[in-house]
Amino acid sequence: MKHSPLRATRVLLPGDLPKGFRFGAVGCGLRKKNRLDLALVSTELPAAAAAVFTSNLVKAAPVLLCQEHLRRAASQMRALIVNSGNANCATGPAGLAASRATARGVARELGCRPQQVLVCSTGVIGLPLAVERILAAVPRLAHNRANAPAAFSAVTRAIMTTDTRPKWASTACRIGSKPVRLLGCAKGAGMIHPRMATTLSFVFTDTAASPRVLQRALGEVVGQTFNAITVDGDTSTNDTLLVLASGASGAPRLAASGDDYARFVAALERVCGALALQVVSDGEGAQRVIEIEVRGASSDGAADQVARTIANSPLVKTALAGADPNWGRILAAAGRAGVAFDPGRVEVRMAGIVVCRRGCACRFSERAAHRRLLERHVLIVVDLKQGRGAARVWTCDFTTDYIHINANYRT
Amino acid sequence: MKHSPLRATRVLLPGDLPKGFRFGAVGCGLRKKNRLDLALVSTELPAAAAAVFTSNLVKAAPVLLCQEHLRRAASQMRALIVNSGNANCATGPAGLAASRATARGVARELGCRPQQVLVCSTGVIGLPLAVERILAAVPRLAHNRANAPAAFSAVTRAIMTTDTRPKWASTACRIGSKPVRLLGCAKGAGMIHPRMATTLSFVFTDTAASPRVLQRALGEVVGQTFNAITVDGDTSTNDTLLVLASGASGAPRLAASGDDYARFVAALERVCGALALQVVSDGEGAQRVIEIEVRGASSDGAADQVARTIANSPLVKTALAGADPNWGRILAAAGRAGVAFDPGRVEVRMAGIVVCRRGCACRFSERAAHRRLLERHVLIVVDLKQGRGAARVWTCDFTTDYIHINANYRT
Repeated sequence: MKHSPLRATRVLLPGDLPKGFRFGAVGCGLRKKNRLDLALVSTELPAAAAAVFTSNLVKAAPVLLCQEHLRRAASQMRALIVNSGNANCATGPAGLAASRATARGVARELGCRPQQVLVCSTGVIGLPLAVERILAAVPRLAHNRANAPAAFSAVTRAIMTTDTRPKWASTACRIGSKPVRLLGCAKGAGMIHPRMATTLSFVFTDTAASPRVLQRALGEVVGQTFNAITVDGDTSTNDTLLVLASGASGAPRLAASGDDYARFVAALERVCGALALQVVSDGEGAQRVIEIEVRGASSDGAADQVARTIANSPLVKTALAGADPNWGRILAAAGRAGVAFDPGRVEVRMAGIVVCRRGCACRFSERAAHRRLLERHVLIVVDLKQGRGAARVWTCDFTTDYIHINANYRT
Repeated sequence: MKHSPLRATRVLLPGDLPKGFRFGAVGCGLRKKNRLDLALVSTELPAAAAAVFTSNLVKAAPVLLCQEHLRRAASQMRALIVNSGNANCATGPAGLAASRATARGVARELGCRPQQVLVCSTGVIGLPLAVERILAAVPRLAHNRANAPAAFSAVTRAIMTTDTRPKWASTACRIGSKPVRLLGCAKGAGMIHPRMATTLSFVFTDTAASPRVLQRALGEVVGQTFNAITVDGDTSTNDTLLVLASGASGAPRLAASGDDYARFVAALERVCGALALQVVSDGEGAQRVIEIEVRGASSDGAADQVARTIANSPLVKTALAGADPNWGRILAAAGRAGVAFDPGRVEVRMAGIVVCRRGCACRFSERAAHRRLLERHVLIVVDLKQGRGAARVWTCDFTTDYIHINANYRT
């Protein structure tokens, strides 16, 4: 297992908090119930930012605004404001105006320029955003801010939609003998509900780095972490993964290579990997995490294509919901992945048991396999025996609860 | 609506049967319960054959054998034998030997060469085929054959797996002033169960045609019929669509163009379209057929890509299970289809109601939309307003029954 949920289950301590950040959250009335739905993270001094966004052609207004602000002020960010309950997507010019008004409201409160504020939204697509409720709550939100575990915890809860639990991870590393801290949080109930509003993920660190170096580090870890998880193959209109670096640790500025850089990238991958795994394991209706490793492909790209096809096959995922060692479905999904291999050489292992060798059935105990497939984390290894290409993808099983959640959202 | 279930609900009459065919079915013990599981269709004289098979890299043994026999004897086919209960896939050299033995057994009984016999299988992947049961049943099967509606009806039931009802369609057209008949049947419960063993479809006609002309006609209709339906995007290892032409109608031999050819192609499309629609509407757990029309794309290919992405989106399909006019999911699926368009121009209509105009929400009655989405057949039109490209795809909704069927198959 390459990723682990890391420290998500332990208690967050004051020493885990990166320096230079303040966190706050309030309920402003965007959600039906009286719950936290608006979060603010601010920095004392201008912070460096790097981000990756959804590749969907349909992009929500806050995504467009973030991209604009990052072009103009990536090294001078002061705040991030996030609302749940409404994705502010497919809302036209009024939607973009609402995001701009949000940034202006925060800037006025903090005494900075609007382009130093990043705005994220998650929730229903296509409904007008009640921006006046956000603006009215900004002063209270700013007042609530603190550099304390309880304040960060409130942020992790305010960004949740159908998530059943908050998702966070923290780690640290040394840069030039000084400790720097990384603390991340994410939302996303895997099956992308309500209405495609899927993953928002934020990592806060007190390392000092330029936006360029930060972006480079993010680019190195995103493929093996957030881009290696899938629940249904649907890409949201709001996906955002953002890193903010306050520089308040006192550690020297991060270079674009060398040991310090390598340690930071490894730490960033730990946090992103842990958050990504938490997203999959809290997938709507999910009972277990399925890790799919494809090896022996002609290239890493070919392995990735086969792994993703298996991970997105409803037949494979429903079989795993029943803990059924139904390897024929895995073989058939691999066969339609658009990648060349010899079906007569394939070996499939499920939860450590070889179930298919040279493309054919081999003897194994169905009962033992079923028992092992009931575990919380199941590893499936498909060896194509063609070359040295390998890839790894994480997904979850596909249960009736997922259908209930997604079919009966408004009825 | 372009396709209709055609005559599937009316009673099949002796006059609907194409001349020159005999049909038979028996139970040979491949299925758990004592039910029909083996079907034979034979022709009095050598018949022309044309077929399309699965594009999956993993191909079942009977698919490989059919391809070989069609290369050697496409104009001299005498019989088709089909078993349900076992797909004879991922069974290695023993599986291919079993299919060959089946063809030999039928050939011996009918007094023809093995390559004049086509063999199809559907059912579980990866289990050895109990071919001795098939061989033992061949004499009884041959004896049972008749050119009668009841005999054809037995064939349609013998090829079923999780289908809840037999699927057949019949039509006729004139070739050189003589009537020719087309009679087809199909199996496939949409969600490809058990174990990927999805669609087998057969069309029998008494027209006279060369395999080349027959294959050309089949190529013209398959894209708009069987290749325009999707339940989960999974391609089976056994998919087969086969046309057998006995020539017994007395009509002149079909030319590769002209009015007669056009009439035959239209008739073939009626039968294939009706069968394809029956497959979707009997999809595992399906409550309704969803027809997705994409227009205004830059090309037909682009439209097809968008239509298929929408049709395979679990989010769209679960929303439709709840009759929820959740157009945001449709827009988001279109946005990730990999096709260029301006999201700000898109119009979406669900069951006749415009729900999205210029990429934004527009006023409509949620209640009225919900009521219309409860119909058995729902049309969704997505107009990208980019060009003249158009495409149409049929799918079904995604319910908890589908999960039950696929998760709890063996447990």
